Amino acid sequence: MRLKETDKAYVAGFLDGDGSIYVRIKPNKSYRFKFQIAPSVVFFQSKENKKFLQSIQCLLGIGNIRERKDGICELMIQREHEIILLLRQIEKYLKLKRKQAQLIVKILDQKQSVKTGHDFVQLTALIDRFEKLNYSKKRKISAQVVQDTLEAEDLLTP
Amino acid sequence: MRLKETDKAYVAGFLDGDGSIYVRIKPNKSYRFKFQIAPSVVFFQSKENKKFLQSIQCLLGIGNIRERKDGICELMIQREHEIILLLRQIEKYLKLKRKQAQLIVKILDQKQSVKTGHDFVQLTALIDRFEKLNYSKKRKISAQVVQDTLEAEDLLTP
Repeated sequence: MRLKETDKAYVAGFLDGDGSIYVRIKPNKSYRFKFQIAPSVVFFQSKENKKFLQSIQCLLGIGNIRERKDGICELMIQREHEIILLLRQIEKYLKLKRKQAQLIVKILDQKQSVKTGHDFVQLTALIDRFEKLNYSKKRKISAQVVQDTLEAEDLLTP
Repeated sequence: MRLKETDKAYVAGFLDGDGSIYVRIKPNKSYRFKFQIAPSVVFFQSKENKKFLQSIQCLLGIGNIRERKDGICELMIQREHEIILLLRQIEKYLKLKRKQAQLIVKILDQKQSVKTGHDFVQLTALIDRFEKLNYSKKRKISAQVVQDTLEAEDLLTP
């Protein structure tokens, strides 16, 4: 993905207007620390404009499109290296969501160096910050929930 | 308003994502042809992001911000020459709303040369086309309504 400056600026404007950057913490017993970190960059449109989302997908060369039951189409980018690649390019043009972009890149960076349960809890504490940035409702799975789970599973002892 | 290329592209992306381009036909007895042609370019945001809309207003140097009762803020550009000035600059970067931009510029152009009631009805027929572009519900005031009104007022006789 090598974008022209004006394409970067356009995508940043579109993401600021009608997109979303977020990370979810999903329970998943098969993971070492019992939770999966699932980051997403999503562009939304009504299904009438699905072709447009496909053109953005072509431009970026990444992402998957799915049609929701409520008639909304989503272009979702969920692979970590693709999210980092995209956000690093458009970050300087983002106005509304620059902090989210910087935070998600930081989270994915820090995720690489998680070794212990404590590291993992610290990582989820970073994810808690998204709540404020996205004006989202209180997360069900906060760093506190992760910490309590890892303690119960005896994953926080050195 | 002299924008950098990347600013034009950003504003185009943001308008495609979270903006609207439309023309309304409003009944107004004080107008020669009984209706007012009211074009708008609008950028929407939640009121939490009002400052962001103000920064776009500063960047463009045009428009007014109003806070709606439902918590949405709008940056509205409604002066004809400002709409034309803005759309001419960002048109080439618009992907979703380029046709609307071209149509509104054409409408405002044609509006300048309206002399007769017939000219005016033709102008409103052009506005009817917006319906399809914006997937909007059927307009209350269509070209047909305008024509009927002007006929009743004896404004269509040569």
